[in-house]
Amino acid sequence: MRPVIGRLAIIGQGLIGSSITRAVYERKLARETVVTDASPKVRKRLLELGLGEARIVKTAAEAASGADMIIGCVPVRSFSQVVGEMAPVLKPGAILSDVGSVKQGVVAECLPIIPPGVHFVPAHPLAGTEFSGPDAGLPRLFVNRWCILTPPEGSEETAIDSTRRFWEAMGSRVEVMSPARHDMALAITSHVPHLAAFSIFHTALAQEDKDHSPVIQFSAGAFKDFTRIASSNPVMWRDIFLMNREPVLEALRSFITDMEACARAIEEGDGDTLEKLFSVSRSTRRKVIEKEHISQQPDEPDDALKDTLFRPYSQDN
Amino acid sequence: MRPVIGRLAIIGQGLIGSSITRAVYERKLARETVVTDASPKVRKRLLELGLGEARIVKTAAEAASGADMIIGCVPVRSFSQVVGEMAPVLKPGAILSDVGSVKQGVVAECLPIIPPGVHFVPAHPLAGTEFSGPDAGLPRLFVNRWCILTPPEGSEETAIDSTRRFWEAMGSRVEVMSPARHDMALAITSHVPHLAAFSIFHTALAQEDKDHSPVIQFSAGAFKDFTRIASSNPVMWRDIFLMNREPVLEALRSFITDMEACARAIEEGDGDTLEKLFSVSRSTRRKVIEKEHISQQPDEPDDALKDTLFRPYSQDN
Repeated sequence: MRPVIGRLAIIGQGLIGSSITRAVYERKLARETVVTDASPKVRKRLLELGLGEARIVKTAAEAASGADMIIGCVPVRSFSQVVGEMAPVLKPGAILSDVGSVKQGVVAECLPIIPPGVHFVPAHPLAGTEFSGPDAGLPRLFVNRWCILTPPEGSEETAIDSTRRFWEAMGSRVEVMSPARHDMALAITSHVPHLAAFSIFHTALAQEDKDHSPVIQFSAGAFKDFTRIASSNPVMWRDIFLMNREPVLEALRSFITDMEACARAIEEGDGDTLEKLFSVSRSTRRKVIEKEHISQQPDEPDDALKDTLFRPYSQDN
Repeated sequence: MRPVIGRLAIIGQGLIGSSITRAVYERKLARETVVTDASPKVRKRLLELGLGEARIVKTAAEAASGADMIIGCVPVRSFSQVVGEMAPVLKPGAILSDVGSVKQGVVAECLPIIPPGVHFVPAHPLAGTEFSGPDAGLPRLFVNRWCILTPPEGSEETAIDSTRRFWEAMGSRVEVMSPARHDMALAITSHVPHLAAFSIFHTALAQEDKDHSPVIQFSAGAFKDFTRIASSNPVMWRDIFLMNREPVLEALRSFITDMEACARAIEEGDGDTLEKLFSVSRSTRRKVIEKEHISQQPDEPDDALKDTLFRPYSQDN
């Protein structure tokens, strides 16, 4: 495959950043790849890992200098600072992107400090595992996963197209939407479910403490999914909740109201309401499954992931 | 393998019942298997499916007559009625068991109507998929899964041992605990997570209706787990919540309190509290993983399940 990018800079080499580095190398998507990470320990580890032909440099500015595309793979609350460091060296026509789980706040913070002539096309690949760090990266992590682009109003179509082509070449399915719509959709499908997972895990720990009986030992199925979710990167999640505050609180209020309606039905022994509620879930889920099945037929992403000890899940943030 | 049971009766041939029928045949665990289901449609389908050498009869009483072990695989609120129908024909020394997700209520309802000399050893295999009906059964569904036995106080050890041997021969790991402890553990690890899954799914549907934007389309990872959970058998779940009311409400209250604490921390921008919360989840999860990994090494259950379209989860109720 012909490289789609000349010089690519990837800032941050955790799970997502190092997965991009690996994928770009495997698919030959850039003529040159320069990577960096704020942590000296991670940079040392990158040297040991080798990660394709990526050049490892010390600072974001050094990596971004002369790059055609720059992808920030850092916690969402750190991104604007990194953009500030890179701003003086970004070349006109370059595309600046990220992989963060929150868009409105990031766009608001970054737009004012991005030099004119540099295109900002935020991206969010819905992919991940519960592991972190450069060792956790997987070259096929993005295959058949959604990548959502949230270009600010007035973005140039050519820049959006280039970013789309990049992610399609990574094997992803690309969707474009506004930052606000993205943040609400993710609050519901990802951020609040994670909060629920964290909370139920705490409820279980408290119960074990209370009566010294095993609870977590029986973590299979539903609860196992929850505990896997609950073990994702704490700093990344802290930042997501702080950055996506309003949509998360809105979704959370609606969720808690729904839960309380369930609690009332249980308390009152109202079987009809419960059955009706559960039936709607089931029929809607069927529709989702049918859609998924068709779109995922051509190329299942899981082959490359079979070596990992635990099943990755595709939307960790 | 020598049959561990002479005559086995399995009442109800949905996902769990038909999985037991298949497993017993594959492992040759009974000299004779008699099955039934209240639905004529299901009985007709059983004839078409063949399900080993199981004899298909019309009523629970007919199936239970002369049986050495009887396993009820019906929704938890129907079990005591079925026991009432079988009571006159249960033979002394027979073991009566079930597979339900709630134990205290079932024990309270059934003990008074079980004839003297018949042993009651309730069981709960922590296994399932989101599918239902006789076609959904899988012969290896129980391999490496927990099966919890909850014998009422004063049960005979020999009956408990026989039931344990049966489930171990099915490939399960067996644990014995009181009905009360079971119900609380399951409320936390299974029932409340399911309620959370149902609720978040409804929150998503409401949001889609509200702004006509795609939400469920991006159901991957965390949310995908939730939607899979949310599509389980509605009647089974209705009964579980009605039967396990007090433990579920207690766990639910604690869960909602935890969620509200998260909401407050987000509202106040309290990053320290959030990070601390998420770090505890992560470290505890690691311990669970280590335990799991060791205990599941010898025989992974998933091989037999690879043919199914969707990953089964091991604790659906």
